[in-house]
Amino acid sequence: MKLRDVGEFALIDRIERAVRRAGIGRSGVVLGIGDDAALLRLRAGEDLAVSTDAVVEDVHFRFANESARSIGRRALAAALSDLAAMGARPLGVVAALAAPPSLSLARAEGITRGLVEGARRWQAPLVGGNVARARQTALTLTVLGAVRRGRALTRSGARPGDRIFVTGTFGGTALAVARAARGARMRAAPEPRLAAGLALARLRGAGACIDVSDGLVADLGHLLRASRVGARIDPARVPRPPGFAAACALLGVDPERLALAGGEDYELLFTLRPEGPGAAALQRRLGVPVAEIGVVTQGRGLRPLTSRRLPGFRHF
Amino acid sequence: MKLRDVGEFALIDRIERAVRRAGIGRSGVVLGIGDDAALLRLRAGEDLAVSTDAVVEDVHFRFANESARSIGRRALAAALSDLAAMGARPLGVVAALAAPPSLSLARAEGITRGLVEGARRWQAPLVGGNVARARQTALTLTVLGAVRRGRALTRSGARPGDRIFVTGTFGGTALAVARAARGARMRAAPEPRLAAGLALARLRGAGACIDVSDGLVADLGHLLRASRVGARIDPARVPRPPGFAAACALLGVDPERLALAGGEDYELLFTLRPEGPGAAALQRRLGVPVAEIGVVTQGRGLRPLTSRRLPGFRHF
Repeated sequence: MKLRDVGEFALIDRIERAVRRAGIGRSGVVLGIGDDAALLRLRAGEDLAVSTDAVVEDVHFRFANESARSIGRRALAAALSDLAAMGARPLGVVAALAAPPSLSLARAEGITRGLVEGARRWQAPLVGGNVARARQTALTLTVLGAVRRGRALTRSGARPGDRIFVTGTFGGTALAVARAARGARMRAAPEPRLAAGLALARLRGAGACIDVSDGLVADLGHLLRASRVGARIDPARVPRPPGFAAACALLGVDPERLALAGGEDYELLFTLRPEGPGAAALQRRLGVPVAEIGVVTQGRGLRPLTSRRLPGFRHF
Repeated sequence: MKLRDVGEFALIDRIERAVRRAGIGRSGVVLGIGDDAALLRLRAGEDLAVSTDAVVEDVHFRFANESARSIGRRALAAALSDLAAMGARPLGVVAALAAPPSLSLARAEGITRGLVEGARRWQAPLVGGNVARARQTALTLTVLGAVRRGRALTRSGARPGDRIFVTGTFGGTALAVARAARGARMRAAPEPRLAAGLALARLRGAGACIDVSDGLVADLGHLLRASRVGARIDPARVPRPPGFAAACALLGVDPERLALAGGEDYELLFTLRPEGPGAAALQRRLGVPVAEIGVVTQGRGLRPLTSRRLPGFRHF
């Protein structure tokens, strides 16, 4: 069964039913799927945070080596990661699916299932969407969140002397991509660091924050430019997943390159004023592993303590 | 010059500069383009309205017969029309552009220019976005608006006995599309009925509202299903643009079909309680031409006073 056999409105009905079955907590949802727009409610003293993100077939995912469900779920994790980086709590998600009429209904519904599962897991109800015909399957997600006024984390909040931290480990998704390129199934289930972002936004002495989607070096570059500062980082202190070096050796890929330039781990990269808590205390506050990897400097530019060239992923 | 020659981040920089040059009034914008998420501020007592909409090359537009600027502007009009239908005032827009690396920079910037011009015209600042590589150009816009709590117009507010009204005229865009199919330039500059929607939301006795994107008959069907009612409409009372019949005759197309089933005019279709104002008074209140075209009935289904089959546009 293909999309062309069920039609646009039947597909939307099926998605609507899947969302209703999931029964996601809808405290902030005044009006969900089915009208010209969804209605969401913020609490007093909150601002709206909004971000949009797209994944495209054969660019960001391949049906050949990943389940449709994983594609939908990963796309939502990626989008929500931007809310995590602002210290926002999710309010809802709208999804625009573009797909060829020849796409199987199973794949379209698989993507939806992954989305709905992620929506429940991360408390970000799917409140609206759009379906359109296209030659390639693509999913554009816009995430809506709420932040306390004046307390949002931004890319521009770093100052010289700030210490630089990261959550979690780096290179895991790049390793999964490298394996998938050699025929393995794509296995990566990144978690947007929503609770950690919220805790960080409450922390006295928080500086700048960004989520690492393009790669650690690339995203640190974005943060530094926005803050008009520089940094020095120690690549050896960037945490990697267990067994990472051995797995990279087996595959013949450079572990340092994967950890520093590989993207889509969706960890948080942030800075704290020098007098703030250390990594151990932070780890307790944020509820995730935290490592200190460097320091913000007055001079512009990023000076890693390595001479290797570490290009990030570029879309064009 | 192609997108592949400038790269993703340079393209984003160019868009950011275009938005800054436009200097759109940003009263509700706490943080615009350039961070992980944009921050928008609602007023006390308002809910957020959100809707997402996509246009895809060779499905919704063709570079061969329409300027890139018109494509960007029409896409924004279509997206904002959903806010108009809710009675919401625009707060901002996020744009996800998917494009092949071979797309000319002129076209990418043309789309952006159309977007930015529309954003200024309709007071809906472009606050964020995403660019991704794809085989086909597509633009997914998510619009954010604000409505007074409990005063949003919905599709489900119609009751038997309500009178049915429309703003503006129908068939103009379908005629432009028919001409474009014969080699003419696509000339259609729909206006989202934002002021009319706001005025309607303030009106005592307002029933249901929808914007007409799929075609009058199709969208009336959506409204009736959401309200669990039926309707009778008089196709002869559906207003058409000046010179419409003659232009259709010249082209050999059926004017009634174009007016009733042709989409993308982005007029409002709404119902009012029987005791509400008539078309003339409404026209003064809403500031746009208004016509009464039928009545809501208890029985389900739409019974036009014509036996012609009037299929709407379906995406698959």
